[in-house]
Amino acid sequence: MKNVKVLKSVLVSNKERAAENRKFFDRIGAFVVNVIASPGAGKTSFIGSVVARLPKDYRVLVIEGDIRGQIDSERLAQLGIDVVQINTETACHLDAFMIAQVLPQINGPYDLILVENVGNLVCPAEFEIGEDHKLAVLSTTEGDDKPYKYPLLFHLAKVVVINKTDLLPHIDFDLKKARAGILQENPCALIYPVSSKTGDGYEAVIAHLVKELDASKKTHTS
Amino acid sequence: MKNVKVLKSVLVSNKERAAENRKFFDRIGAFVVNVIASPGAGKTSFIGSVVARLPKDYRVLVIEGDIRGQIDSERLAQLGIDVVQINTETACHLDAFMIAQVLPQINGPYDLILVENVGNLVCPAEFEIGEDHKLAVLSTTEGDDKPYKYPLLFHLAKVVVINKTDLLPHIDFDLKKARAGILQENPCALIYPVSSKTGDGYEAVIAHLVKELDASKKTHTS
Repeated sequence: MKNVKVLKSVLVSNKERAAENRKFFDRIGAFVVNVIASPGAGKTSFIGSVVARLPKDYRVLVIEGDIRGQIDSERLAQLGIDVVQINTETACHLDAFMIAQVLPQINGPYDLILVENVGNLVCPAEFEIGEDHKLAVLSTTEGDDKPYKYPLLFHLAKVVVINKTDLLPHIDFDLKKARAGILQENPCALIYPVSSKTGDGYEAVIAHLVKELDASKKTHTS
Repeated sequence: MKNVKVLKSVLVSNKERAAENRKFFDRIGAFVVNVIASPGAGKTSFIGSVVARLPKDYRVLVIEGDIRGQIDSERLAQLGIDVVQINTETACHLDAFMIAQVLPQINGPYDLILVENVGNLVCPAEFEIGEDHKLAVLSTTEGDDKPYKYPLLFHLAKVVVINKTDLLPHIDFDLKKARAGILQENPCALIYPVSSKTGDGYEAVIAHLVKELDASKKTHTS
């Protein structure tokens, strides 16, 4: 009988490539947040609102994922934000290999890299890209049942931003029910209701982010 | 040298399975619409609104696709609508094989089968399920740029329903821009702005659907 040797696959898995990306981000001292949401939940507005409110000494880069075009990149660049665009052509999510392709374009150092994933509440959650954590944006207009129906993202996201609270008087959205659905998936989730239109709620988001960034800096330099 | 025979794959493709599903739907005389949209765009409300307004002699079935749970099925069943539930567990779309699995549960005859796909503006468009055509629901709260950023669905959908027009006074949504984006992808798209909350615009949707159903009946019986 011949010896059968199990050889390690020559293909690097997404998980392995994500770990390599992570090493790169660690080297340049960047804290990386993977921003995931449905189309039109307000990912770009959220990112713009965060960068506008973050103390100016934090250096921020946005990696912008879109199937096609650069509508969001242009919006963010107009706000004076550094942006690297990825067009996935047909793919419904960003993966670690797409991120790896743009790393050579990142001329650090950055304190914070916000990755705006393709608008999709399902697939992007399945692919690690080398992020520190995932952040979900759920908009009130999508309905309070979404965490119950699309569990994976809410299971994995450390932070959930509930956006478009300014529209609450005009729609049926039960914040308590949404909260309960999120916490059912992840009892440790940090939930921040905000309105990117009025700016309501951003103070708490920024306070949290600054705490995260400062803790991350201590880890990097220790 | 050995002869190399190219054998036809024993695996049936999604396209082939969709063609089989289509034969089944033709046999029971059903016109099938694949309803696709982002999470929370209002697919279930749209379906409920259509069935409530359709003349009562049309027999309607809904095939309900969700990753998990049966929140939407229960909503529709409470309206007295026949529903068959598919839970995809993790899959981000319905495919022809999932539909095939529930065909034995369909005790026709039905004039119209509305398939509510998983909430996702990207992946469901890639999979035929045996439908007569795809119908996209775009909600105003998602933004007027969606047809530009998520082209495939708008390229393929014969009908695009723009939902939540009741919220137009409270948001920035340019109906002209959305229309132009849809028509850029598909110059023949039929676009119907509606509000499932107030019922505005449904008259035109129902008139179109009745025309489609009657034309389909003529084809089936000829």
